[in-house]
Amino acid sequence: MLQGHQTWVFESKPVILSSAAVGGPFEAKGPLGNDFDLLHEDLWMGQESYEKAQKVLLEEAATRTIEKAALDKEDVQFVFAGDLLNQITSTSFACRTLGIPYFGLFGACSTSMEGLALSAFVVNGNGANYVLTGACSHNAAIEKQFRYPTEYGSQKPPTSQWTVTAAGTAILTKEGEGPVVTSATIGKIVDMGLSDPFNMGGAMAPAAVDTIEAHFRDRNIDPDYYDLIATGDLGKIGLPIAREMLRKDGLPLSEEHFQDCGLMIYRDDQPVMAGASGAGCSAAVTYGHLLNRMKKGEVKRMLIVATGALLSPMSYQQKETIPCIAHAVSIEAGRAV
Amino acid sequence: MLQGHQTWVFESKPVILSSAAVGGPFEAKGPLGNDFDLLHEDLWMGQESYEKAQKVLLEEAATRTIEKAALDKEDVQFVFAGDLLNQITSTSFACRTLGIPYFGLFGACSTSMEGLALSAFVVNGNGANYVLTGACSHNAAIEKQFRYPTEYGSQKPPTSQWTVTAAGTAILTKEGEGPVVTSATIGKIVDMGLSDPFNMGGAMAPAAVDTIEAHFRDRNIDPDYYDLIATGDLGKIGLPIAREMLRKDGLPLSEEHFQDCGLMIYRDDQPVMAGASGAGCSAAVTYGHLLNRMKKGEVKRMLIVATGALLSPMSYQQKETIPCIAHAVSIEAGRAV
Repeated sequence: MLQGHQTWVFESKPVILSSAAVGGPFEAKGPLGNDFDLLHEDLWMGQESYEKAQKVLLEEAATRTIEKAALDKEDVQFVFAGDLLNQITSTSFACRTLGIPYFGLFGACSTSMEGLALSAFVVNGNGANYVLTGACSHNAAIEKQFRYPTEYGSQKPPTSQWTVTAAGTAILTKEGEGPVVTSATIGKIVDMGLSDPFNMGGAMAPAAVDTIEAHFRDRNIDPDYYDLIATGDLGKIGLPIAREMLRKDGLPLSEEHFQDCGLMIYRDDQPVMAGASGAGCSAAVTYGHLLNRMKKGEVKRMLIVATGALLSPMSYQQKETIPCIAHAVSIEAGRAV
Repeated sequence: MLQGHQTWVFESKPVILSSAAVGGPFEAKGPLGNDFDLLHEDLWMGQESYEKAQKVLLEEAATRTIEKAALDKEDVQFVFAGDLLNQITSTSFACRTLGIPYFGLFGACSTSMEGLALSAFVVNGNGANYVLTGACSHNAAIEKQFRYPTEYGSQKPPTSQWTVTAAGTAILTKEGEGPVVTSATIGKIVDMGLSDPFNMGGAMAPAAVDTIEAHFRDRNIDPDYYDLIATGDLGKIGLPIAREMLRKDGLPLSEEHFQDCGLMIYRDDQPVMAGASGAGCSAAVTYGHLLNRMKKGEVKRMLIVATGALLSPMSYQQKETIPCIAHAVSIEAGRAV
């Protein structure tokens, strides 16, 4: 099961039985609008706070995923999930609603693949019949916590990224029809000494490169094994940095081959500066758009590399640099997709 | 491996190869002072902030645990750890120092057993040769975040608990000498509608009861199977509530049989109100004191039930009640202890 130093290979190939993505009004206007199961017209989503709206996103994605799998929530043994809010309250409150035994995760924007890796390990090891995993973020809740309330209208530099309002979730099981999870590489923290919280993509690129290189070293395969390697979220600044670092290390990847979830979800004319980010971005893009592409036969094998910047507003104030991490999970077209 | 609805039984019985506990000056004065590997005389621990001091606690516990196992940090595949700070920065920064692939967890004071359950699952499933797990808290950092800076001298009601300044860590492996991890029950969120952040023990008691009852139901064993069932941390208010709830449900447990980590770590004349709490409490008490008791032969089988209150200061301000969770892990005297 352990292969190399930091990679798991799942010999039973756990199946993604169902998945769902829920988004907000700004995501509805993007090119992936049709890949969402549900889109909200209002950022408040009927709630009295943005934090509670973030909870609703995860609840709705989880509920739809369970319905699409034709299961009841009592059939699901465990949830692996998290978000970016202090004490990941949106996720915990959503899991209160679900009533399913729950592992809280914190990996910032790497949470989606941290959860998918653990879920696949648990299903592969006969630890559950059904596991639900996912992540969520809400633009107004996260911007308020990490930067300023959006109502202040403060300007952001062109290197900054736009927090996605979305949740993505998936249910894994041992047997059935659907895409399969074949391996996962768990990242270690890489900190190149950058401290600018408005340039996360640049800070996270070396962590993505470290995990991608570890993945190919541990698995002893070439990058051509995958049709698509998608990071989440390096954005316009980080993706070219990562591509250049990989090229120098002898892993040249084309623009079609190596993409970023943070550059897929919005149109070029949406004013998102250097692209999208947020724990819900790679979750919603993977569990919505990319799995749809796989179902259509456009992608056969993909490696999702979710990247997290593990800073806090306080660690920045205390003049710490930004510790970054990336976890990679490979998803392949499975039986009778 | 899955037994019942929410319990894992580890057939290979992963071994706790080594463990360590590091504490602060107030913990040094408590009855468990001799169970710590290292005690700091100064709450600042040579750092310029309490948050950085909290990081040092975890770094030191991890480093000592690796040394006691006669390993290098490169031998350890994964870390499962977390803390109570926003974005669990102390844990992430400690893992930057360690350089080991890392799963960030958030389970508030239940983090210790969330991490031990996942570590045992991964070792049992051949996902690693060595896994390190642990949790930490620092009184001044956590009190500042959740309540007030201690320098304000604000009074607290008698139901409030004292955040422990400590870290506890353990290394698990598949074979060797030492106590073994035999099973784990993962809790679901229980929220009885309490909203007083100064009475965590009372809020968490029903979650502890829910997980303890699930454990005995899933494993189909009697409470007498264990010499000791220890919660962490219900304190003076929560422990009698949990005992009474269990008694009504037909699981009577004596005062010797059913104890609480939050009532072990300080003397009666230390002014800690209703007892101790904090993510580092059950971690340090279990990986220091309780494993020492097991090595002395005083305890043969114990069930550690770590309880977490998954609120945030903001969720309280937004008038939410407190969602609580508890994870239970059984540790038994192993081969040639």
